[in-house]
This record gives sequence, C-alpha cells and structure tokens, in this order.
Amino acid sequence: MNQLELMNSLSIPGKTKMILLVLDGVGGLPGPDGLTELEAAHSPNLDALAKKAITGLSTPVRPGVIPGSGPGHVGLFGYDPLDWEIGRGVLEALGINFPLGHNDLAARGNFATVDADGNITDRRAGRIPTETGARLVEILRQIKLPGVEVFVEVVKEYRFVLVLRGEGLADGLTETDPQMTGVPPLPVEALRPEAEKAAGLLNMWLSEARKLLANEEKANSMNLRGIAKVPPIPKMSDIYKMRLGAIATYPMYRGIGSLVGMDVLKTGDTIASEIETLREHWDAYDFFFFHVKKTDSYGEDGNFEAKMHVIEELDAALPAILALQPDVIAVTGDHSTPCALKSHSWHEVPVMLWSKVIRPDPVVTFGERPCMAGGLGHIRHFDIVPLMMAHAGRLTKFGA
Amino acid sequence: MNQLELMNSLSIPGKTKMILLVLDGVGGLPGPDGLTELEAAHSPNLDALAKKAITGLSTPVRPGVIPGSGPGHVGLFGYDPLDWEIGRGVLEALGINFPLGHNDLAARGNFATVDADGNITDRRAGRIPTETGARLVEILRQIKLPGVEVFVEVVKEYRFVLVLRGEGLADGLTETDPQMTGVPPLPVEALRPEAEKAAGLLNMWLSEARKLLANEEKANSMNLRGIAKVPPIPKMSDIYKMRLGAIATYPMYRGIGSLVGMDVLKTGDTIASEIETLREHWDAYDFFFFHVKKTDSYGEDGNFEAKMHVIEELDAALPAILALQPDVIAVTGDHSTPCALKSHSWHEVPVMLWSKVIRPDPVVTFGERPCMAGGLGHIRHFDIVPLMMAHAGRLTKFGA
Repeated sequence: MNQLELMNSLSIPGKTKMILLVLDGVGGLPGPDGLTELEAAHSPNLDALAKKAITGLSTPVRPGVIPGSGPGHVGLFGYDPLDWEIGRGVLEALGINFPLGHNDLAARGNFATVDADGNITDRRAGRIPTETGARLVEILRQIKLPGVEVFVEVVKEYRFVLVLRGEGLADGLTETDPQMTGVPPLPVEALRPEAEKAAGLLNMWLSEARKLLANEEKANSMNLRGIAKVPPIPKMSDIYKMRLGAIATYPMYRGIGSLVGMDVLKTGDTIASEIETLREHWDAYDFFFFHVKKTDSYGEDGNFEAKMHVIEELDAALPAILALQPDVIAVTGDHSTPCALKSHSWHEVPVMLWSKVIRPDPVVTFGERPCMAGGLGHIRHFDIVPLMMAHAGRLTKFGA
Repeated sequence: MNQLELMNSLSIPGKTKMILLVLDGVGGLPGPDGLTELEAAHSPNLDALAKKAITGLSTPVRPGVIPGSGPGHVGLFGYDPLDWEIGRGVLEALGINFPLGHNDLAARGNFATVDADGNITDRRAGRIPTETGARLVEILRQIKLPGVEVFVEVVKEYRFVLVLRGEGLADGLTETDPQMTGVPPLPVEALRPEAEKAAGLLNMWLSEARKLLANEEKANSMNLRGIAKVPPIPKMSDIYKMRLGAIATYPMYRGIGSLVGMDVLKTGDTIASEIETLREHWDAYDFFFFHVKKTDSYGEDGNFEAKMHVIEELDAALPAILALQPDVIAVTGDHSTPCALKSHSWHEVPVMLWSKVIRPDPVVTFGERPCMAGGLGHIRHFDIVPLMMAHAGRLTKFGA
C-alpha cells in the first residue's frame, strides 16, 4: 500500500479546519550578519506560534535535489514528487490561467531566430518585447490542425504556450530545442507509439508556423519544450474526503492547487487580500492552501532586505489568520530560495505545525537553525499533510 | 525513478572539486573516560572544520545493520547497499589487487582438513602459515578446466582466491562450507539455471584439487565461499559526469573505488603519502575518495589509544588537505568499529559537510555526541554524495 492509498483508507470527514501556509522559497542561507532571511526578520508572531508549536526541517524531494515550483508544491500537497512529475508545458499553461483539461497536450513555446540555412542564431529571438510576442501569437492562431483544437497563448517576451486539445493525444515527446545555436531546431519525436499522432500534429504545426513567420526579422522560428499532459494525479479532495480552497496571487500556484482537487478562490495581489479571501470562504472549506509568493521572488533577486520584509509582512498578518481559529496550521515553504544563491536550492525548509493536540518542542524561534533542534526532526514534504490530517482528528486507526 | 536515475538526470559537469574523506571504522563507543575514540582525540582541525560545517549522523545500510567494508563503501559512494551486493569472492579478489573483469567468477577459498571419511575436522586447516598456502596454490595452478581460464591466488594463511574466467559463467551458487565439522564439504549448487555451467566447472575443480592435496597433512581439502561476479553497478563517473580518483593504502578499497568508476591513484602506505598523491592529481579530477584505513584496524584490535592517535594524525594532516581549497569536503566513516566491540558495528557514523553554500549548524566539535545535534540530522550513507553534488553546484533543478 502506498502513502496515498494508506491516507485514502484512513481519512474521514470532519468539521476541523486546516491551513497550510506556504511562504514560497522561504528557506535561506546566512546573510551579512550571519543570520538567514527568516532568522533576521522581526517576526514576533511567527516566533510566538513556534513557541506553542512543534518545529523541524523538511526535504521537498530528496536530499540534495533542487525542487522546481511544481515538485515543491506537489510534495507539500502530500505526493512524492518523483511519482508525479508535472511537465513544463503544463506548468506554463497553468501559469497563465489556461484551463487545461485531460485531453490537452501543452507545450512551452520559445520564439527563436534562424539564419538562411535554418540554423538557430538566437534561442530567444533577441528577447522580443511581449507586444511583439502577442502580435506573432495572433498570426499563429490561424493555423488549423486536423481533428484537434489548437490554442496559442502569449506568456511573456519570447515565450508562448501551445495547447492541442483532442482525443488520442499522448505525451512522451521530445523537445525541439537543441539547446545550442548553429544547428536547426529538432523535430518532435514520439518516445512511445501512442505519442506518434501528437508528434505528427506538432511537426505539422511547426512547419506552418515557420512559414507564417518566415519574414520576421527576429522571431522567424520557434521551439517547443516540455510537451506534456496533466498527470493523472489522484485528487486531495478524494483522498482526504474534504473540500480544499487555494488562495494564491500567482496563477501557477492556483493551477497546481486546481490539479490536485482544490477550488481556486478569487483573490487580489496582496497578503491582505488573501486574508480577506480566507475569511470570506472560511465556512465553506476544510483545508486552505495559502500561498505567499514574494519571499521567493526576492530570493531570486538576491534582495535580502525585501525578502525579510515580506516575512515581516506575513508575520504582521498572522494574528488575523489565527483569529479564524484554525484547528491545525502548518507554516513552511515549498523549497529554499536563499538570496545568497539567487535561485531555488536543495536546503531543507523550516516547518512548524500547531494544533491543540501538538506535542510542543523547546524551539521558540521560527528559523532554520532553531528548527534543526525541532521536535519533528527532519521530515519530507509529503509527510506534512498526513501530520496535519492526524492533528485535525481526520485519520482513523490503522489496523486493530 | 530511483535515486541513481534521478542523479543521472540532474547532474551536470563543473569545475568544482570535492573530497570524500573516509576514516574507516571511525565511529566508536565511550571508553574508560566516557568519551569515544573520536571525542577523546585531540583534533583541533576537525573541530575547526565542524564549526564552519553542517554535521550529523549517518546510517550506512539500515538501522541496526552491521556493514561489511563492501556495503559501507557502496553506501558512501551513493548506492543503496541492499541493491548492490558485492560478493565475498569479489571483495577478496579486489583485496589482493586481482584485476577482476566482467567475465570473472571469483570465490574465496579456505583450506580445510578432512578425515579418512572425508568429514571436516578443521575448517581452517590448522591456520597454516602463508608460505604453506603459497606452496599449495602453486600445486592447484596445474588444474585446467574446459573452456575457461583458471586463476588461483594466495591471500593469507589458509585463505586463497579462485577465479574462473570465461563466457557464460553466471553467479547464483551455493557455498561448499557446511559451517561445522564432522560432515563433508557440500557440493556447489546452482540456484538458477544459468549458473549450472559454473557449478559443474567448480565441482570439477574441487574434485581435482582434493586429489592433488590428498596427501597433505593439514590442508588436504578446501571450501569455496561467496562465489560471485562483479555486480553490474552503474559507474559514478557516468551517473555524475565527473572524473573520480581513489586514494587508499589498502587494495580492497582501491578495488571498490575502481568498481564504481574511480581511477585508482598510486600512493604509499601513509596518510602523508596519500596527501602527496592528492596534491599531484588535484587538477585532473573532480572528486577524490580519500581513505584512511588504520582507524578501523585499531578498532578491530580494541586499541583505543592507537585508534585515537590515527585520528590525531589525520587531524594534523587536515590543513594540508584544506589548503588545496576543495569546494566541498565531507568527513565521515564507512561504519563504526568501536574498540569496545573489537569489530564493525551498526552504530551511526558522524559526518560533516562543508562548502561555501552550507547552512552551518551550532555544532563545534566533530564527535558522535555533538553530531547528534547536527543540522543534517540523521541521514543515510547514500545521501552523502547527492548532498556533496548539490553543494558543488553540480545538480540542476528537478522539474520546472
């Protein structure tokens, strides 16, 4: 029996309420003063919660593995990210709010420049502005393919999304980007027989698309990457027999929540508006995924002060969240994004869990080093939801 | 996707340099003063490194499992030792520097004494001296077998190695040693059909060998144990896309390194000569396995002082190693060999990891008890190489 089957067999409906509060990329490394972003932040409310809570460190995927946003969240939602990979095309589509269905095959598209011989001279088409990308997408929307619907959507600059919708479109397809210049784009190839149909259609689309853009100065070609379908991931709503709401300011996180069976709750751009949304929907849901994006964005920028301030902003908002009296709250991140690295990293993520039936540990500060001594020890992301469920009184005994 | 596939898919070449410094059997138990060998040793340089590093404890195989040298190192090299067993015959051959190939079937041989009825009276032939063993091996080299090459090599005292080389020799064979006296040696039996050919040849060899030694006073028979081939273990050089050098004073450790794709670097008998070797080859390799043997030897002897002094000798040499400015260094052992037990043990092994992008913990001493509070927590041996790779900037992001 795997973990999802175990959880499915043990979970029972209830009236308790849970919040999974995710500070994206919260984990850090020591900065100028020897403290991490989280340790340096003035966060009396997080610390007060830590004092009552049990704390620890969590590994998103495996030791040493740097998680993308997909695997980081898939882990947080209780799945082993090695079992449930979400393709880049799917994430890109979710990231622009494209309503992906189970008959959809999604690819990330990159406009590119090729020379007279068809060899790539710029894999990003000189980073054309988004307006140019939008004009080109309009042109590409003329292309029709037999037996399937075709969607082309602007993302940003040289990036777009291509979605084919129809029966019999399997994934298991190679990318066209050769990852170097001086050579032509590759054809899409099927890695398994079921994917032959999709490969044929995508190559047909590419050929038409390159004809239509042949006279463009920069974006006279394109590559398709991460061509994938939505994975057949079992829904949290079914496994745990509860109603889940996703509150996130960025489309990609709403999209991942939606994939695992969460209702996406309309919200604004700020933590304050997210709290308003939480309050509004408090009665209607059992489990809330509450996502704070900017810790990660500033980590990627290497902006220590700004990342610290987002943590402080969340800290100031925490009493309003706790005022709703959740039965269980977990605070953690999907992965670390240390300012020192300006990128996602493999470092463990601090986690704290509170409920009335917690076994509290001696840790009184929510930070990476304090959490090294936490009572949860070193857990994995996919342990967090089962622990929340248990603390919410929503798991029955295993065995007699 | 298993761990090796995951690592293979994520690893990228780089310019960073890594050292895996293995103090064989370093883990211990409290001695007369209540301190372990490592804790009692005067080791200011190891402690200074611990202060900057992240520390923890590592389980070589599974909790409670006492690792042989093979599994201990297989774990350290990033493999699950339960997936990749190295047979006793293979280890014995590696231990005498025998160049084992993939068509070789190796067995450990033990000379034995049998009575007139063919029943074993001494499973070790009265522990004959090595010179006698060598004389007998010369006699046994006369034996020819159809279609395969035969090698017989002296090991020590009553021990020898037998290697058959040829096509179609499969392992999956029983041992002949009944593990008691008063009964005859057992025949070699094939545990699977592919091994029938090898079983027939080995029984033919045993029959000839016993005839040739029939008039020996003590060593008038023999047993074959751990009959095995080199496992088809994927090479670290391929998985991690790097060049690896093995520096070890004992053949067995060089042999295991070689099995997993390391170049064996010629070195002397001392830690000083090993450092010289490290320095000489510094530019040519990405990853060095640096093995210190005598901690284990003195542990097996139960010589607390001597084991402590080997640790102090390594400590004194540590600055010369660090002077090479590795990007990542891990210090640990393959297993524990507490003087109190005079044998390998299941106790966890202290480990510390340093790089510029480490998240340091509060531990300031490299010892078993201090490492219990370390920021790495309790890891497994096969987590160490992935963590080293991550800290060396040689793993790309998993998923988008």
